[in-house]
Amino acid sequence: MPNFTLDSRLQRDSIHVVDLPLCQVRLSRDARYPWVILIPQRAGVVEIYDLPGDDQARLWQEATRLGQAMMAFYRGDKLNIATLGNVVAQFHLHVIVRFADDAAWPGPVWGHGSADAYPADLLEQRRAEIARLASSATSS
Amino acid sequence: MPNFTLDSRLQRDSIHVVDLPLCQVRLSRDARYPWVILIPQRAGVVEIYDLPGDDQARLWQEATRLGQAMMAFYRGDKLNIATLGNVVAQFHLHVIVRFADDAAWPGPVWGHGSADAYPADLLEQRRAEIARLASSATSS
Repeated sequence: MPNFTLDSRLQRDSIHVVDLPLCQVRLSRDARYPWVILIPQRAGVVEIYDLPGDDQARLWQEATRLGQAMMAFYRGDKLNIATLGNVVAQFHLHVIVRFADDAAWPGPVWGHGSADAYPADLLEQRRAEIARLASSATSS
Repeated sequence: MPNFTLDSRLQRDSIHVVDLPLCQVRLSRDARYPWVILIPQRAGVVEIYDLPGDDQARLWQEATRLGQAMMAFYRGDKLNIATLGNVVAQFHLHVIVRFADDAAWPGPVWGHGSADAYPADLLEQRRAEIARLASSATSS
């Protein structure tokens, strides 16, 4: 069985935060939104139904718990959860905290304008925030 | 406890297909994509985590099984599953079969151009197709 390897585009556009039991959690480099990407650490997954049923349940659980924790911490207006994958085939799930005054509101974030890069210190701060939220939200 | 009532915008932009154990399945009136919307028949749900855990699991299961059946039937290139809800607050989940030559590919479907209305006979045909797929995919 082939090993899990991360798509090069995902690697470039996001940074590693933490590995949960199923998913690698990565932070989007786009500073406009608190935006994480969850990638199940399984080889050859393109569609959600390529995962066995217990991994599917684990995926949604990890995403939902992290999303809920992010919504509370960042005091968001709406949580967006989506798997599109029309550009990068490797299965990945977007979890994005939205605000009524954010750049793309009320439209979706994909394809809207250009990404804002984080200043280095804010990137590290947000990475640490997400790592803490992910670990506490999914530890039970 | 208040009863489930469907948001008026969802009612206008989609038509009723079938009720699954948890979700009402509706067909988008936009003929550009095989596009269904699942709405948990529970009152007061805005975020996925407003549902109890067993309803969350049921929601993803209904969406995944129907999406897989639609992908096989329509021979799609990619399945998109998303909950945004930035416009309509009532929780709803989009399940969309995408094609590499469809109108919005590889971008997301929301906010891309204007909806194409189905001719009446095709609307009824697609509704019947989705009803059949939904019932067989979620009966086990």
